[in-house]
Amino acid sequence: MRNILVIGSGKSSSYLIKYLLEKANAEDLQITVGDLNIENARKLVGDHPRANAITLDVFNAESRNAAITDADIVVSMLPARFHIEVAKDCVALGKHMVTASYVSKEMQALDEQVKAKGLVFMNEIGVDPGIDHMSAMQVIDRIRDNGGKMILFESFTGGLVAPESDNNLWNYKFTWNPRNVVVAGQGGAAKFLQEGAYKYIPYNRLFRRTEFLEVEGFGRFEAYANRDSLKYQHVYGLDHVQTLYRGTMRRVGFSRAWNIFVTLGMTDDSYTIDDSENMSYRDFVNAFLPYSPTDSVELKLRHQVKIDQDDIVWDKLLELDIFSSTKMVELAKATPAQILQKILMDSWTLDEDDKDMIVMYHKFGYELNGEKHQIDATMVALGEDQTYTAMAKTVGLPVAMATMAILKGKINTPGVQIPINKEVYNPILEELEDYGVVFNEKEVPYLGYNPLNA
Amino acid sequence: MRNILVIGSGKSSSYLIKYLLEKANAEDLQITVGDLNIENARKLVGDHPRANAITLDVFNAESRNAAITDADIVVSMLPARFHIEVAKDCVALGKHMVTASYVSKEMQALDEQVKAKGLVFMNEIGVDPGIDHMSAMQVIDRIRDNGGKMILFESFTGGLVAPESDNNLWNYKFTWNPRNVVVAGQGGAAKFLQEGAYKYIPYNRLFRRTEFLEVEGFGRFEAYANRDSLKYQHVYGLDHVQTLYRGTMRRVGFSRAWNIFVTLGMTDDSYTIDDSENMSYRDFVNAFLPYSPTDSVELKLRHQVKIDQDDIVWDKLLELDIFSSTKMVELAKATPAQILQKILMDSWTLDEDDKDMIVMYHKFGYELNGEKHQIDATMVALGEDQTYTAMAKTVGLPVAMATMAILKGKINTPGVQIPINKEVYNPILEELEDYGVVFNEKEVPYLGYNPLNA
Repeated sequence: MRNILVIGSGKSSSYLIKYLLEKANAEDLQITVGDLNIENARKLVGDHPRANAITLDVFNAESRNAAITDADIVVSMLPARFHIEVAKDCVALGKHMVTASYVSKEMQALDEQVKAKGLVFMNEIGVDPGIDHMSAMQVIDRIRDNGGKMILFESFTGGLVAPESDNNLWNYKFTWNPRNVVVAGQGGAAKFLQEGAYKYIPYNRLFRRTEFLEVEGFGRFEAYANRDSLKYQHVYGLDHVQTLYRGTMRRVGFSRAWNIFVTLGMTDDSYTIDDSENMSYRDFVNAFLPYSPTDSVELKLRHQVKIDQDDIVWDKLLELDIFSSTKMVELAKATPAQILQKILMDSWTLDEDDKDMIVMYHKFGYELNGEKHQIDATMVALGEDQTYTAMAKTVGLPVAMATMAILKGKINTPGVQIPINKEVYNPILEELEDYGVVFNEKEVPYLGYNPLNA
Repeated sequence: MRNILVIGSGKSSSYLIKYLLEKANAEDLQITVGDLNIENARKLVGDHPRANAITLDVFNAESRNAAITDADIVVSMLPARFHIEVAKDCVALGKHMVTASYVSKEMQALDEQVKAKGLVFMNEIGVDPGIDHMSAMQVIDRIRDNGGKMILFESFTGGLVAPESDNNLWNYKFTWNPRNVVVAGQGGAAKFLQEGAYKYIPYNRLFRRTEFLEVEGFGRFEAYANRDSLKYQHVYGLDHVQTLYRGTMRRVGFSRAWNIFVTLGMTDDSYTIDDSENMSYRDFVNAFLPYSPTDSVELKLRHQVKIDQDDIVWDKLLELDIFSSTKMVELAKATPAQILQKILMDSWTLDEDDKDMIVMYHKFGYELNGEKHQIDATMVALGEDQTYTAMAKTVGLPVAMATMAILKGKINTPGVQIPINKEVYNPILEELEDYGVVFNEKEVPYLGYNPLNA
């Protein structure tokens, strides 16, 4: 019997556990799901004879150690900052490990020990990071294997609301951690490569320098640049490309409206607002506008950020009820970002029947036999309900598939790693297609950023 | 004989030393000026029989200790971060100390020891901080002594170029540390009180929310908010005021033009630009603009920040030659702020005959016998030349006067302190008038921020 320990039974564990339970008999698995809150874990394992739920506090060394000792492989679905204690135990006890999170410095530091023990520590194998790595490397490797030379790579992902549940003016609802959405893009200028030149966008311009993307059957999206588009340049083998750009997708118009909050300072998370608990939403907005004994908060805002009388962006603000003098902030010592998040959650929380959507868009530009080519690849995954979401599917399935592949010895290169090698991405991408996670590729004329090439 | 040790013979020490030398015979002073670079110190002491210059490295404990041992009082004109070593020696050796710098946490932590030894450590006694404290507290104390209740305090200072040397489109030249000008306002939202409500301005709006100030004989200025207007609220005894605002003065139009650099990201000091040393000024500007194979850097900039064809702000940019493709950045691994500083120094460095100017503007609003009143006080100091600048005068003279007052026992309340008490500010403000540093007060109708009060 092969024992799998899954730590964390939160939002992203539903598909992961469902997948493992479905394979449990055929693959002779015993699945233990540990969580501080055992109720969630119990709900996900149900009454499956090969699964059990346990109470697990990762900060309790004894209970953590006991659970890991019994496992052959450990899947950590905890928030990223909690992985490291689990990882150290896995090294000490000689267990493989899988996470969907970015490789932290502490995790990377374990690489030598992990290799010495012949263990596989697979990270960044969710959706973004995860499916983006795998789907990108599959095309990049194919282009190279055919003798092509990469000159452009752009990659965009968005966690959005499915078209059938898309019923607000922002075409957006929170399908993941709302806090990450509110503070997205903060902490430094976005940096990327465009036609051979480094380009930098400060936070206050980030949401005004978007580009459009068309996805067949789903219409038009926009994307704003990620903080560091160059993070995987070397890892992907793209040291000599002319253009390298990674971004986040939204429906068209979201970013222009969002920039109003950025401009006024409402997304700032670095200081707390005095007396925030007794503020109305209107008071909160007014804190970012000049004092006037007569002018309305509405007109002051229109004037500060230059919103014309007939601009539809205004209706987006009204829809959020940010000018309400009766709705109260109620949060004590809150940052602007925390207050804005609360206001947005009134409007952007998924309804019970709402479905989410993951959209991914890659552009690959390359030279072959002296000619320039471009391949665009898109993927759309739709959620089924609020438990089996597109996010849970695209995060959990690759994690589960990698876990099985490591257990079976199909992934066996030891070390702390991410899924950029063929032995990893080929079988997983192939199996993901059975679950509807399919990339549509098409050849398009190479444009790069130069319309003169057309 | 009374021995004064002045450490640091930089820009702000000229008037300070001149003042002390003029008093040396009558007051029986012996003045030692120590600097790492003895040439500067020698130039300032000249051949005065009661003064000498010494080489002094504040990081050399032995030479520092020896110099301080011989002194009765130590004046540190070093950059603020270097004071603390001197301060510790002064405590150990039982010497008074004077600086023009903000009280650091480390300095404040010495308060008990300083008091125990009966020493006076006077800080923030330059111009801003310094003359601003003294001139504000003199009026505030007078209003209170007369039974008035403070309801509004606003205070503005600017280090600018004198009108006779004001010959560029920005009406600005660097009269002090250029770096501080380039990064001014960064690090968090500006916070202040307006008619009872806290207001917050993010960095990207700071230079677009200015207010105008008229100074008789000198015309119109504008001011943008300092980071923390509330810093001295409690110290000044202004806990219950409705409006509290501190700002920095520029000539009208400076801030709107400066905001172009802020918006594009050119003032960012948090990351370095790749290959900066080989960039032209034009390349630098282009790094903050989208790639285009055809459109000019000029038009892209106009479009990004929406500058109309006939907007005079454009001429301000042209004057700086930022679109030059032949002028090179030449700085390796430079931040945007460092590169912008270099570009600005080409245009904003004082010519040999240029004179500087310090402008200060206070507004005091108060209630007396049920009626609202307002006093506006303004001060303008003009430089004589590039050594005897207005900045050196307004920083150095109060430092020198405080030094003499401490030596004579006229300032004798022990502790780490700033000049907000009558025993300190009254004699110094009176003596400053002899040197042309005069505040013009006038009663004006109380407006606050409410034109309906008019």
